[in-house]
Amino acid sequence: MLPQWIIEKKRDGSELDTPEIREFIEGYTKGDIPDYQMAALAMAIYFNGMTPRETADLTHAMMHSGQVINPDAIPGTKVDKHSTGGIGDKISIPLAPLVAASGATVPMISGRGLGITGGTLDKLEAIPGYRTNLTQTQFFQTLEAVGCSMIGQTPEIAPADKKLYALRDVTATVPSIPLIVSSIMSKKLAEGIDALVLDVKCGSGAFMKNIDDARALAQALVDTGKAMGKKVTALITDMNQPLGRNVGNALEIRESLQILNGKGPADSQRLTLELAKQMLHVAEIHDLGKGIRNPEDKIKAPALHLKDGSAMQKFKQMVSLHGGDLSTALPEAENQIELPAPRSGYISECNAEAIGRAALLLGAGRTKTTDTIDPAVGISNLRKIGEPIEKGQALCTIHSNSRENTERLFQLLETAFSISPSPRIPPPLILETITA
Amino acid sequence: MLPQWIIEKKRDGSELDTPEIREFIEGYTKGDIPDYQMAALAMAIYFNGMTPRETADLTHAMMHSGQVINPDAIPGTKVDKHSTGGIGDKISIPLAPLVAASGATVPMISGRGLGITGGTLDKLEAIPGYRTNLTQTQFFQTLEAVGCSMIGQTPEIAPADKKLYALRDVTATVPSIPLIVSSIMSKKLAEGIDALVLDVKCGSGAFMKNIDDARALAQALVDTGKAMGKKVTALITDMNQPLGRNVGNALEIRESLQILNGKGPADSQRLTLELAKQMLHVAEIHDLGKGIRNPEDKIKAPALHLKDGSAMQKFKQMVSLHGGDLSTALPEAENQIELPAPRSGYISECNAEAIGRAALLLGAGRTKTTDTIDPAVGISNLRKIGEPIEKGQALCTIHSNSRENTERLFQLLETAFSISPSPRIPPPLILETITA
Repeated sequence: MLPQWIIEKKRDGSELDTPEIREFIEGYTKGDIPDYQMAALAMAIYFNGMTPRETADLTHAMMHSGQVINPDAIPGTKVDKHSTGGIGDKISIPLAPLVAASGATVPMISGRGLGITGGTLDKLEAIPGYRTNLTQTQFFQTLEAVGCSMIGQTPEIAPADKKLYALRDVTATVPSIPLIVSSIMSKKLAEGIDALVLDVKCGSGAFMKNIDDARALAQALVDTGKAMGKKVTALITDMNQPLGRNVGNALEIRESLQILNGKGPADSQRLTLELAKQMLHVAEIHDLGKGIRNPEDKIKAPALHLKDGSAMQKFKQMVSLHGGDLSTALPEAENQIELPAPRSGYISECNAEAIGRAALLLGAGRTKTTDTIDPAVGISNLRKIGEPIEKGQALCTIHSNSRENTERLFQLLETAFSISPSPRIPPPLILETITA
Repeated sequence: MLPQWIIEKKRDGSELDTPEIREFIEGYTKGDIPDYQMAALAMAIYFNGMTPRETADLTHAMMHSGQVINPDAIPGTKVDKHSTGGIGDKISIPLAPLVAASGATVPMISGRGLGITGGTLDKLEAIPGYRTNLTQTQFFQTLEAVGCSMIGQTPEIAPADKKLYALRDVTATVPSIPLIVSSIMSKKLAEGIDALVLDVKCGSGAFMKNIDDARALAQALVDTGKAMGKKVTALITDMNQPLGRNVGNALEIRESLQILNGKGPADSQRLTLELAKQMLHVAEIHDLGKGIRNPEDKIKAPALHLKDGSAMQKFKQMVSLHGGDLSTALPEAENQIELPAPRSGYISECNAEAIGRAALLLGAGRTKTTDTIDPAVGISNLRKIGEPIEKGQALCTIHSNSRENTERLFQLLETAFSISPSPRIPPPLILETITA
């Protein structure tokens, strides 16, 4: 079967069968099917979508385009979390050690930031010495010793996704649910996990701007996980305002350390605990040690592991095995400038997208994959929706290493905040929970 | 502006502006924009279409991607014809010399066959020695000396189309009206012509299977021509049964010679004369010489030029200047096999697509551009719809150079014909005429 016949079939709205999808992805991985045919198929998928069966087949084909880690190679019950990406979303960093402290194993393969969306790898690399490119043996050893390890995508894992992800970015085929789902799930399921929790962000700073789109994506992720025989739950969470108070790589490590100390902003803390609870639930962890044998107590367990320092200990162990040094100071920006509130009142908006653009302008993110980032820069001390503020008090603190773009930066940040005379009720953090 | 933003704009259904279209095509021609971005844009155009203004801009950009022949370089009023392609469509071959004999200049740049559709160049090359790759100087000299010349697309003419045409073929983006229109019109208008007649084929053997699609294409071609300041008329003509009685390269040259002799099948003759009349009309040829000064007589003129041998003389001159030798016999196939009618009655169907597939199977066409063709093979003596037939009489004659595939060939040809007990009125040859 010629590749163009498969493209034509999808173009005309028909359902592709399993061998067609497998053949196409195998050919693309090997280079027999060139980028231009993959681009045409991706655009046809953008327009005509895919059935749940096709999406599962696409995920399966991409997952098996490279190495699939044998679950037996990693001890314990393996569970992971994936976020679709937002502003200030550092939750993976405290979450992985917390879940490891709670008795599960978290073999987390993360990504880098692009555009306004930050990436866990970039954040971790703000820790002096932290290496995200462990060998597979080192990855397994870290998992065995600590219960969690956070690395970057290796060339062996889902190479079809690696190629397709880069291609989608330059062919305007990113916002397609079957393509998003297969990209996320092929990588995650190649990790050899038993269960997965997804954090689907929804709002101005997220890929999915409204609840309908977020729900469709969450449902497709859960359905695909189920079709692949895994326990998967998706939370839809708010991304209209940034998560927590810090945006920027080293600044987000600081907030992560606060969370691991049982402190930090209320929303970051709450989401960390909620995701931990969901991960332990899908992983079916019943024996949490330390006398917690009643399943009902499970939900309290993660908070206990923050309180007793065991999650922090896991984090320190992991960082150390990754070559990182937490005793060395995190990078700090030269200039720290407060953005004064133009009037008194209550924060009624703190637009995540604008904050993300400001962080990008400061150098905390990339506009293209080859850009280098500055780990020190970003925004801290962000005021959250509903909080009172006096005229002249700081709306946030800008951490900058350059005096360039200052005017545009201030403009961006000023438009990000709205202040109203009466208090606004903060938007709910967790909007929906979708299970198979 | 990044190419992916232009793709995204079209993907989202917006109208691209003139600089966006120009920039994209210029970048693609130079190789700055890779095939995969062009493929994604082509698929987005397939789904969302283009306005007449966008189609004209695309045509203009593709036409100016290479050399545009200066109309002053060619003497006289220049007019051309283009057919969207069908089975047995050899009309260009008698038509160009006929129109030249009638006083216009016909600088015809033709194409090769692909799939079931034949190509004028392949047919001309069945004439021993005929060269379709003249230099531009030789092309101009032939036009000056004869009034017509039929060559292949040079690398200088519309290189963007050359690249895009090949790309569309392998990315399932062929059947898109703006892409078809810009492909046809960019090449034709780069020839330096004043006017153009289009023969939009409609039916089982054509690209456009029904009258609505054919009409939409014809209208888009005429609109684009008008937007580019040219006089353009489109005929929609039947392609449910093959045109004429011969299909195959040398066999179609034979039929062309019959037409130039004022003979040949009635439909081939009629379409040749009708297209000649339309070409002379759009070219505004009023002085046809030989005492024909009354515009009303113009419509009789082409027939007179067949009768008096002047069209045949032009053809012979043209072939000679192209290095061809009509005194040498045309290639003939080894085996000539008659397909007997299974019963008596009237031909009620002679399916053009099936006949085209049979010719392809014999080796008269290409399934991919790199295939070589056999000029001698094909099908002759085709019975036409409405004709009576006796059981055992030949439905057609197969000209074959191989005993391979004979069974499949017979099956195909047998299914191509239907015989009914009562006569069926033949379908109209010319369905509609569309002018600006």
